[in-house]
Amino acid sequence: MSKEITSREKDYSQWYNDLVIKGGLADHSEVRGCMVIKPYGFALWERMRDQLDRMFKDTGHVNAYFPLFIPKSFFSREAAHVEGFAKECAVVTHYRLMKDPNGGGVVVDPTAKLEEELIIRPTSETIIWNTYRDWIRSWRDLPLLINQWANVVRWEMRTRLFLRTAEFLWQEGHTAHATALEAIAETRLILDVYATFAEEYMALPVIKGVKTESERFAGAVDTYCIEALMQDGKALQAGTSHFLGQNFAKAFEVKFSDRNNQLDYVWATSWGVSTRLIGGLVMAHGDDDGLILPPRIAPLQAVIVPIYKGEERKEALDAKGREIAAQLKAAGISVKFDDNDNNRPGFKFAEYELKGVPVRIALGLRDLDNASVEVARRDTRAKNTVPMEGLAGYIGNLLENIQQAMYDKALAYREQHISRADTMAEFERLLDEKGGFVLAHWDGTAATEEAIKEKTKATIRCIPLDNPPEEGKCILTGKPSKQRVLFARAY
Amino acid sequence: MSKEITSREKDYSQWYNDLVIKGGLADHSEVRGCMVIKPYGFALWERMRDQLDRMFKDTGHVNAYFPLFIPKSFFSREAAHVEGFAKECAVVTHYRLMKDPNGGGVVVDPTAKLEEELIIRPTSETIIWNTYRDWIRSWRDLPLLINQWANVVRWEMRTRLFLRTAEFLWQEGHTAHATALEAIAETRLILDVYATFAEEYMALPVIKGVKTESERFAGAVDTYCIEALMQDGKALQAGTSHFLGQNFAKAFEVKFSDRNNQLDYVWATSWGVSTRLIGGLVMAHGDDDGLILPPRIAPLQAVIVPIYKGEERKEALDAKGREIAAQLKAAGISVKFDDNDNNRPGFKFAEYELKGVPVRIALGLRDLDNASVEVARRDTRAKNTVPMEGLAGYIGNLLENIQQAMYDKALAYREQHISRADTMAEFERLLDEKGGFVLAHWDGTAATEEAIKEKTKATIRCIPLDNPPEEGKCILTGKPSKQRVLFARAY
Repeated sequence: MSKEITSREKDYSQWYNDLVIKGGLADHSEVRGCMVIKPYGFALWERMRDQLDRMFKDTGHVNAYFPLFIPKSFFSREAAHVEGFAKECAVVTHYRLMKDPNGGGVVVDPTAKLEEELIIRPTSETIIWNTYRDWIRSWRDLPLLINQWANVVRWEMRTRLFLRTAEFLWQEGHTAHATALEAIAETRLILDVYATFAEEYMALPVIKGVKTESERFAGAVDTYCIEALMQDGKALQAGTSHFLGQNFAKAFEVKFSDRNNQLDYVWATSWGVSTRLIGGLVMAHGDDDGLILPPRIAPLQAVIVPIYKGEERKEALDAKGREIAAQLKAAGISVKFDDNDNNRPGFKFAEYELKGVPVRIALGLRDLDNASVEVARRDTRAKNTVPMEGLAGYIGNLLENIQQAMYDKALAYREQHISRADTMAEFERLLDEKGGFVLAHWDGTAATEEAIKEKTKATIRCIPLDNPPEEGKCILTGKPSKQRVLFARAY
Repeated sequence: MSKEITSREKDYSQWYNDLVIKGGLADHSEVRGCMVIKPYGFALWERMRDQLDRMFKDTGHVNAYFPLFIPKSFFSREAAHVEGFAKECAVVTHYRLMKDPNGGGVVVDPTAKLEEELIIRPTSETIIWNTYRDWIRSWRDLPLLINQWANVVRWEMRTRLFLRTAEFLWQEGHTAHATALEAIAETRLILDVYATFAEEYMALPVIKGVKTESERFAGAVDTYCIEALMQDGKALQAGTSHFLGQNFAKAFEVKFSDRNNQLDYVWATSWGVSTRLIGGLVMAHGDDDGLILPPRIAPLQAVIVPIYKGEERKEALDAKGREIAAQLKAAGISVKFDDNDNNRPGFKFAEYELKGVPVRIALGLRDLDNASVEVARRDTRAKNTVPMEGLAGYIGNLLENIQQAMYDKALAYREQHISRADTMAEFERLLDEKGGFVLAHWDGTAATEEAIKEKTKATIRCIPLDNPPEEGKCILTGKPSKQRVLFARAY
């Protein structure tokens, strides 16, 4: 192995960090809580971003860009919103540095103090709804279906690469509608887009649901979410879509005249996914040798490694390797021919396993004679000798098979880890011994939710959308309940 | 006209603002100096960004992402760099808000003060070179060819939409090399990429050159640039590429062992273009009726406007309009069929002229009978009746013709506005009466450059790369000079 990876069993958290850092996705920076997204990690984000962007555009959305800064007074207009974000805001107070009068270096120029402090956006509802006031007059201006790709900052005290960082990259959709029904339909449409993206591109099965009041976005009427399961049995919230009612329209006085010329407040949604998804991808699919990336979003889908025997027929190997690479490229496969002769094949095999490249093609002298190659898939590690003739078609199919197999495997794991508990004892035993999701009855109060969290560290991830009605008793209080809700310990 | 545009002759500056705001590109925000990039403007930026990104990747570059925040101490390590940027830095001093103890709203929590202030990046050399120290050990790690698409903040006192805003979007390339020659070659390669992009995509002829010492990037050994000419005779710096020598490697102690196992500091470049380019695009091509966008980067290349006569054969018009739109789309043309029946054709014509859509296709009842359409090009306003048969091919060619014609027109204007002056009197007369670039002799000193600027508001835009040697005398001091340099008043 080129780089030592801690095993999942030994230390899951360290295993995760090893995959992220040694796999070349990201690294800590010297700025507290901020990460550097390295080229391989950013290429992965680009693939995810471009696919999501296509899906947003196919459903009628357009992109725009709003300021990084939010004046403090805007920020505090929606009461629940400011309450939710005030404790994690980076604040700009000055706009100039000056030479330190007491020595070298620079200090903040005390005379360059802002009249009103600016908040670095933790999310953009306030600055965007302040702008929408000028853009919306009549029902003809609606719906407004806008998305923004941006960086945001939330001053988290405990950070983890991708999963929780002070600065992260995300998209935030902010839409405006003439009726509550239309806004709710938009919220649900985007939830479906997120679920489709997670399942079909990230090979990550998710449960769609709605959050309880205490887990709602600050300022939302309803928060919908998709919840995924990681290999350590903990849940990860992978995306949220909020129905905001008229809360932000009221806070920023955004009214429109409807078809009957009546003035009313506009209805809103907002929704986002972030670089956090990359953390979920790593934890859902990786193994003790490294990342395993789903072919549809892998920056590199296949790599060709020549097995040199010194200089023997090296030119022939290189020529054939390049020829195969060109064939695969022509078939739309993202491929690299690694002719670096500083590193031995074994080193390269380990490196591409670590980086999770879905397919490895080894090409040796005997392969030249037999017009075949050795094809290894990263997910199952199965190897096959495959004729060079028709190789591009074979690899294309194999990539689709890998995509499906990764999803099936994650789904089987998830299905094995959805349990039902009817007592607190069983609930706690399941969480401790098995992990995963636990469906249990809950009396519907925030107090009980909090008490269960205190006792078990498990939270209500969501009330699943397809939940069957079922009479029962709350596992904590014994009070009546009409449906089970989905609990888990979560990231 | 749907929206009143100030003419260039009446008020060039207001004309520019009208095009940007009424054309739907951007708007002022309520945050000082920050703009909102509206969907149409952002779609234009996406086309520009995607093309540049392809060109960077085709020349071996990869993308990554570095933190928004730069610790003050990093920022001040390179002396010239901090000197250049200290006066326009947004500074984060606190990380939490709290309820105002004296009333409603929130205030900065005084207990949440950062130990070290964070600067919002005005450019990222310092944070990136601090990171490169961990990434570079040996010549095998070089070259490192990394680009970042990001927002940056420079606290400008006088701002103008796109041309000069406190926050703007840009790309910044930061490369590391084993030798000075390689780094200089990279600097020049990128200058060529920028020039090709400006000329072939933006239809904007540019002059490539090198900056004088006083106009150099803070921390650079040499700054190369491309300079474009606007319709009011003022120049616009459209992109810069810097050879940074070993300045940042020395400031951040970034050394590598070369092929002979000798330790040396790494050689650096950085280069960037920004949303400022959009301002240049508006000013170089627009007319008194609105924007004129070059087809290769126009978000919408063609629009089809049906000419309804009430309900008469409306369905047939709509069916044909959609059929034509589908044909154009299949040919790779970005097209919209505007069947909105709230607005009359005249209103739509004016709106698409304002937005600078290169080609307009009008489709009336008589056209249905004759199997033809009326095609109008935005740049020359020429109209032609064209058979529906083969229309996609015709429009495809027309778009290429428009692209070329826009470049030719801008080039002819630029060539007419490069003058030569041999005395101060002539120099000032040319600037006042004709505008544009003036080639004149200069004695090579910063003092003379500054004196000419004070006297005339003209600066040395660059020393053109293809400058012929020519003996002469400085227009201000009469001292000897070996070449003319390129002066202009500039944005």
